[in-house]
Amino acid sequence: MRILDRVAELRAEGRDVVSLCAGEPSGGAPAAVHERAIRVHADREPLGYTPALGIRALREALAGHYARWYGLALDAPEVAITTGSSGAFLLAFLSAFEHGDRVALARPGYPAYRNILRSLGCKVVELDCGPEVRFQPTPEQLDAAVAEGGPIAGLVIASPANPTGTMISRDELEALTAWCHANDVRLISDEIYHGIAYPEDPSAPGARGTSAWELDRSAIVVSSFSKYWGMTGFRLGWMLVPDGLRPRVDALAGNLALCPPAPAQLAAVAAFTGESYAEAETRVEEFAASRALLLSRIDVLGWGTVAPADGAFYVYADIAPRLGAHPDSSAWCAALLEEEGVAIVPGADFDAVAGRTFVRLSLAAGPAAVAEAIDRILRFQSRL
Amino acid sequence: MRILDRVAELRAEGRDVVSLCAGEPSGGAPAAVHERAIRVHADREPLGYTPALGIRALREALAGHYARWYGLALDAPEVAITTGSSGAFLLAFLSAFEHGDRVALARPGYPAYRNILRSLGCKVVELDCGPEVRFQPTPEQLDAAVAEGGPIAGLVIASPANPTGTMISRDELEALTAWCHANDVRLISDEIYHGIAYPEDPSAPGARGTSAWELDRSAIVVSSFSKYWGMTGFRLGWMLVPDGLRPRVDALAGNLALCPPAPAQLAAVAAFTGESYAEAETRVEEFAASRALLLSRIDVLGWGTVAPADGAFYVYADIAPRLGAHPDSSAWCAALLEEEGVAIVPGADFDAVAGRTFVRLSLAAGPAAVAEAIDRILRFQSRL
Repeated sequence: MRILDRVAELRAEGRDVVSLCAGEPSGGAPAAVHERAIRVHADREPLGYTPALGIRALREALAGHYARWYGLALDAPEVAITTGSSGAFLLAFLSAFEHGDRVALARPGYPAYRNILRSLGCKVVELDCGPEVRFQPTPEQLDAAVAEGGPIAGLVIASPANPTGTMISRDELEALTAWCHANDVRLISDEIYHGIAYPEDPSAPGARGTSAWELDRSAIVVSSFSKYWGMTGFRLGWMLVPDGLRPRVDALAGNLALCPPAPAQLAAVAAFTGESYAEAETRVEEFAASRALLLSRIDVLGWGTVAPADGAFYVYADIAPRLGAHPDSSAWCAALLEEEGVAIVPGADFDAVAGRTFVRLSLAAGPAAVAEAIDRILRFQSRL
Repeated sequence: MRILDRVAELRAEGRDVVSLCAGEPSGGAPAAVHERAIRVHADREPLGYTPALGIRALREALAGHYARWYGLALDAPEVAITTGSSGAFLLAFLSAFEHGDRVALARPGYPAYRNILRSLGCKVVELDCGPEVRFQPTPEQLDAAVAEGGPIAGLVIASPANPTGTMISRDELEALTAWCHANDVRLISDEIYHGIAYPEDPSAPGARGTSAWELDRSAIVVSSFSKYWGMTGFRLGWMLVPDGLRPRVDALAGNLALCPPAPAQLAAVAAFTGESYAEAETRVEEFAASRALLLSRIDVLGWGTVAPADGAFYVYADIAPRLGAHPDSSAWCAALLEEEGVAIVPGADFDAVAGRTFVRLSLAAGPAAVAEAIDRILRFQSRL
C-alpha cells in the first residue's frame, strides 16, 4: 500500500506514472451488469436485506455456471453468495477452524490469507514454495510441516495463484485432496482467477482451472465476480459449502454480514448471459497479449526465474541479476517509481523470506502500459 | 429466522400475513440515492476497489453530517466507511479486543453482538437490563460484573436500542463513559438508530440521540445508512475510529473486506442533500404515527411492561398477562402466526433469560399494518 500511496502523490504532482500494481482489471463490469443495475434502481426495487446467503436467482445462476464450465451438477443451496471473496474467506476460516489451529498455505501467496487467519487466532504454517515445486504446495511439504510442528487443520490453495499466476494441475490437485483426506485436513480452494488462463489447448479439461469440487465436495471453494467479470468494487463473491459445514456457515453469515450487497446481487445475475461471458473472454485475450509481450522481453530485461504464468494477470519474476546496488527488490521498486514513474509490487509483500529479490507485475493495465513500463524499466536498469 | 421462514411458507400458500418482524424500513433509499446510483452505472464509472476505509467524498460528507446533527468537528480520516454496521462491528471487535477478553452488553440486545463476539473467542458478559434500569446498562451493574467475574475489556451499548427502542440520556452516557475511562474499558456505541427518535422537544440537545463522541473520542462509534436512510441492502455503514486504534483498523479493513461496496459509496453521497434528509424525516413521522397508535392500544391489549419506546421502530412489551395457556412468548408468537397470520418476534431472540414473556413489534410496516395486526392480536387473545 505504500507504493499505491506514493503513486497517488506522484500523480497529484502531475507525474506520468505507469502502474502495474493493480489486482483488478481496468475494464469494469460487463455492460449487461451495469444495465441491470440501472433497471434495479430505476424500478425502485426495495433493496432491503436479502437472505444471508444470497438471492435464489443468483445462487441458481451460479449453479448453472458450474454446469457450464465444469460439468458439475450443483444445487443452489450449495452455493453461498458472500460479500466478495473476502467475506467468503472469513466465513470459511471461522466455520472450519478453531482458535490456535494450524493452517498451511504457500509462500509466496496473497497476504490477506495470512492476515485474516492470524487476526482470528490461527497459526499460519508457511510452505516455502519456490521454482522447484512450481510455487505450489506439495504433499511432501505438508508431511514435513506436520512432522515438524504437529497436525494441521487446514490447507489454503490458490490456482491460478496470486502473485505467481501458477496453476495446480488436476493430478497435483488430486494428490493434495487425497493428502487432506488422509490427514483430516480441511481444504480451502481459492478459485477467483478461474477463467483467466492461458492454456495451450483451450478445449482441454481444466483449461480454465480445475475446481476442487470436481474432485472432492468436502473442500470449501471460494470464488468471486471480481476478476473474470471485472467487478471488484461490487464486493460480490461466493463459496461452495460442504454439507457438514452448512449449518455453521448459515448461522455465521447472518451474524457477520446480514447479507451481501443487494443491488450487486440483482445486477450480477446478468453476468451469466452469453454477451457477458463474451465480454469477459475479450478481456482475457487482452491479458494474454500483455502476458505474451512481457514474457517475450524477460531475456532482454535480463531477469532470472519467472514463475509459470499459467493464469491470472500477473508475472512474478526474480530480478536478482539486475538488482544493481539495491539491497532488495523493495528498494529497487521504490527507486524505479521515483526515477521512471513505473509502479510494480516487490516480492516481499507476498513472501517475506524468499521474495526479497522478486517483483510482481500486473497485466491488468493492458499491453500499451506494459510496453511502456518495459521501456522505462530497461532505461532504469541501464543506469544501475 | 424460523418465524421469517414460516411467513414465507404461509405467503407461498396464499395466506395474508401481516409481518411486524422487519428490522428495516419498507420505503427503501432516498430518491436522490437511487438517481446517483443510476448515473454511476450509466456513466460506466470504473467501480474498482476504493480505499479500504472508503472514498474521500463520503468520509467528508459524513464529517459534515456530524457537524449538522451534533455540532461536532470531525476530520474525514476519523470516519471509516464500512460494509454495513456489521463490517464496523467486526473491525471494532477485532481491533479493540483479544481472544478471551470479557465484553459486557445489555440483555435484551441485538443478538449479532453476542454472536460475533463469541465467534471471535470473546467472553460475553450479559447485563440483566430490565425495566428497573430502563433496559440499559448502569455503572452499578458494570461494577458488579467486574466484582463477580474479573475485569472487562469492552462495553457495547446501543441507543436507541434494538429490541427496546430505549435511549440512553446524555447524563447516563456521561456516567457510562466515565466508568469506562476509570476502568480502562473500550466503549463501543451503536448509534445506527440515531435520527429515529420521538422526543418531546425535537429541538432539545440530544433529541436525535447523543453520540458517544460528543463526550469521549476514545469510544468507537458505529452507525449505518440502513435505518434512518432506509438503505439496508446497500450494506454501507461507518465507524468513528479513536486515534490510537486507527493503524490497526486501517490494516484490518483492507485484509478483511478490501473495501466497502463502491457503487453504494458513490450513491450514498446523495444521502446528505436536503431532499434526502427530508425524505428520511417523512419516514420517521410515519414510524411516529405507528408508534402512537400501538402505544395507545397497550391497555386494551392488556399487556404488561412496555420498554420506553424512545426511538428506533420497535415496541418491546411483556405479554405475560395474556399468555393464556402458552408456556412462553415463543409458543404464543407461533400460535398467533398460524391462527391469525400476524408475525412478531418473541423476546427470547433478544434475551434468553428474561425475554421469555416479551415480544418485539416492528413499526416499519406502517400504521395500517400495525392497526390490522392489533385487531388480529385482540381476536387471537380473546380465544386464549
